[in-house]
Amino acid sequence: MLSDPFHQRLIDLLPKEDLLVDPSDCYAYGYDNSRKVFPPQAVVFARDTEQISRVVALCNEFSIPLIPRGRGTGTAGGSLPERGGVVLSLERMRRIVKFDPANRVLVVEPGVLNQEAQDAVRPSGFFWPPDPSSSAYCSIGGNLATGAAGPHAVKYGTTRDHVLGLTAVTGAGKIIHAGCYTTKGVVGYDLTRLLIGSEGTLAVIAEATLKLTPEPAARGGITAHFRDSEACAAAIAAIMAQPYVPSALEFMDRAALELVRRHYADLVPEATQALLMIEVDGSPGEVEAAGEAIARVCCNEGLLQIRIEADSRALWAARKALSPLLRDVAPKKINEDVVVPVSRLPELLRGLEALSGRYGLANVNFGHAGNGNIHVNWLVDPDDADQMRRAQACLDEMFDLVLGLNGTLSGEHGVGSEKRAYVPREIDAATLALMKDVKRVFDPNNILNPGKLFP
Amino acid sequence: MLSDPFHQRLIDLLPKEDLLVDPSDCYAYGYDNSRKVFPPQAVVFARDTEQISRVVALCNEFSIPLIPRGRGTGTAGGSLPERGGVVLSLERMRRIVKFDPANRVLVVEPGVLNQEAQDAVRPSGFFWPPDPSSSAYCSIGGNLATGAAGPHAVKYGTTRDHVLGLTAVTGAGKIIHAGCYTTKGVVGYDLTRLLIGSEGTLAVIAEATLKLTPEPAARGGITAHFRDSEACAAAIAAIMAQPYVPSALEFMDRAALELVRRHYADLVPEATQALLMIEVDGSPGEVEAAGEAIARVCCNEGLLQIRIEADSRALWAARKALSPLLRDVAPKKINEDVVVPVSRLPELLRGLEALSGRYGLANVNFGHAGNGNIHVNWLVDPDDADQMRRAQACLDEMFDLVLGLNGTLSGEHGVGSEKRAYVPREIDAATLALMKDVKRVFDPNNILNPGKLFP
Repeated sequence: MLSDPFHQRLIDLLPKEDLLVDPSDCYAYGYDNSRKVFPPQAVVFARDTEQISRVVALCNEFSIPLIPRGRGTGTAGGSLPERGGVVLSLERMRRIVKFDPANRVLVVEPGVLNQEAQDAVRPSGFFWPPDPSSSAYCSIGGNLATGAAGPHAVKYGTTRDHVLGLTAVTGAGKIIHAGCYTTKGVVGYDLTRLLIGSEGTLAVIAEATLKLTPEPAARGGITAHFRDSEACAAAIAAIMAQPYVPSALEFMDRAALELVRRHYADLVPEATQALLMIEVDGSPGEVEAAGEAIARVCCNEGLLQIRIEADSRALWAARKALSPLLRDVAPKKINEDVVVPVSRLPELLRGLEALSGRYGLANVNFGHAGNGNIHVNWLVDPDDADQMRRAQACLDEMFDLVLGLNGTLSGEHGVGSEKRAYVPREIDAATLALMKDVKRVFDPNNILNPGKLFP
Repeated sequence: MLSDPFHQRLIDLLPKEDLLVDPSDCYAYGYDNSRKVFPPQAVVFARDTEQISRVVALCNEFSIPLIPRGRGTGTAGGSLPERGGVVLSLERMRRIVKFDPANRVLVVEPGVLNQEAQDAVRPSGFFWPPDPSSSAYCSIGGNLATGAAGPHAVKYGTTRDHVLGLTAVTGAGKIIHAGCYTTKGVVGYDLTRLLIGSEGTLAVIAEATLKLTPEPAARGGITAHFRDSEACAAAIAAIMAQPYVPSALEFMDRAALELVRRHYADLVPEATQALLMIEVDGSPGEVEAAGEAIARVCCNEGLLQIRIEADSRALWAARKALSPLLRDVAPKKINEDVVVPVSRLPELLRGLEALSGRYGLANVNFGHAGNGNIHVNWLVDPDDADQMRRAQACLDEMFDLVLGLNGTLSGEHGVGSEKRAYVPREIDAATLALMKDVKRVFDPNNILNPGKLFP
């Protein structure tokens, strides 16, 4: 329950329509795509930077947890109000502040949806490369908070590479301005990228200056069908070792393809046990050259066929649908987004197969192979206690496998609450202690998304 | 002078050949390309991460300033031991730790020269995009410390976009590991990019994991000759507003071209009063398409000629030589590397011309036009007190001009000691205070490059 004095101060501070305190209203702000629920005691709708600053300062004064929230599409529990408190929803800060095509810049409020940003700049021939599967309904603020990326990172880089500057509010309620408006700038410390991926634990992002990329003149799609994952993984490594970088290089394993076949008949032949969806872009000449070069290095003993896809929309739709489709086959999926160096993918896939056998757990793998970023899904029934215990032991071994291959626990979902227990396996004690000290500088009373990201 | 106990501890800690204390030996470590001299009391040659940690811990114990140093090629005074103390030279940590072409990764010690890194990876078809003019003799560690970039940043991005991870030693002597080995990774705060551009004030970089880029299959060179800077600036904006991004877009103004003509006869026609050196790269088809598209948008009323340069080596040599050549025409050049949004370049160039006239100061401008990053050189005689006063007032106005155009004080040189007085004009007080708090977390006793970067 909110204390009366704090509640009164919130009421004084905010217009009626920007504050929810009824538990039934607050409930919807208590969960994200991790499917856990921790209802907050209040929801505040942010309207502008100054108002964010006032709300944060108030929470800081009363030491009330404040959980910044985009659209709740995160899978790692990053926006769960685990300790109750106030959810600060950025969903109503949805203005495109400035579109400056001459300088390839888009300035947005954090609640602008990824798709809205793309739609705003496309007519002028630009796009913003980060494009998570949830782009139609996830917010730019959330993309920045988690460092969400998507399939095009293999060529265009991740979220951190596409942001020039930020306005943000620290846990002490201070308004800061990080970065600059130009594509080069080295004055002061890079707080922009420090905030990106910090999962709302350092500051609330109130405005973002995004760096736009010109739309390529042409795009081409290729599918490469393999008789097994091993051959497919070898092709991935070969593709990434030659000079033409595909604009997307998506992998689906046998189990993922079965799921696709169940819902999209005739899209993928029965014999195909591992598939690569390859996209190339650039000038028409570049698309042709890249397509040829990539097709050439895909030719190994396990290649069944390679096809130029004149229209790959159906396949992309199937690829995007994979994550929700998994919900249909099992009550719960444990969805990880581990990364290994591309050359270690064969070892990862072999290791996952072994784990799946040893623990008797169904396993579906797909994702951004060009970055070595695989979405590993373990299908489980939370009501089956024995299975859940096995799943826990299996995850435990999987993370050791990934780190043993010089990989990382998360490529784009973030740590949130789901992965924090494993963080000390990846980050050594001295570095982790330093990160906590940095957190203290931004958020002296630990009110911003407390308990997240750190073990 | 070093205190005896501290000196003795240094002697105990280090092999004889890794320590200099003779003032005549130390002198050479007291200056950089800012041409100021502050000799240190000792020079220590770092050998490995553990030894760096021990030296930093010792300096921390005695509160002795420690100035990390690459090859002293910085122009902003970033490596000057202004308060004396110990210079920690990384020049002997020159090992290429690992070249992993399958994963496009190069792991280097900080003393590896930029050119050595390029030479190591070129035979396998890769390059590392940051390439400052001093690439033949500047170190990777220095490149990272300053965020040095160079002409190819317009297409490939800056230093921050090409580093996956770092091993570093904080001001407390703690060894930390930032980032990861893969091209995606969002576990923990992004300390990698926080350290890049921090000019040795937060930690000493002991090892860097660099992200490599495939060499393009083809390159093309174009020069566009204009009758004045105004027409040239319009062409720059037009080039950057169309989809094909040049791999370099270098500008030279009338004064820079005069300097070139003096040393390289017949390279540039007399009528050319502003020049663009344009490089495009990619597949042969991409090079052709990009060259045509760029040539098309260069055609404005002020265009004198546009030439395909079959061999642009002589021009690049002239461009690279511009900075040292300036030393021949004036006893001192005040060399700034301001940035403005590309669309504001005409206003910047007009403003610089007005300042040059008003203050009676010779002015030479050239640089990375595609990023709006212009090297503005004011030619002065330090013995002429009146001229130096005028130069100071002129700089003052120039920085206001740049910030008024939504620009930044430095695109790649850094702040060092030269620009710190102007930092509060760009960074607001709350943000600057936060940066100082971050510094305190990394370096509690303010021993790492004290006095730099901050006003």
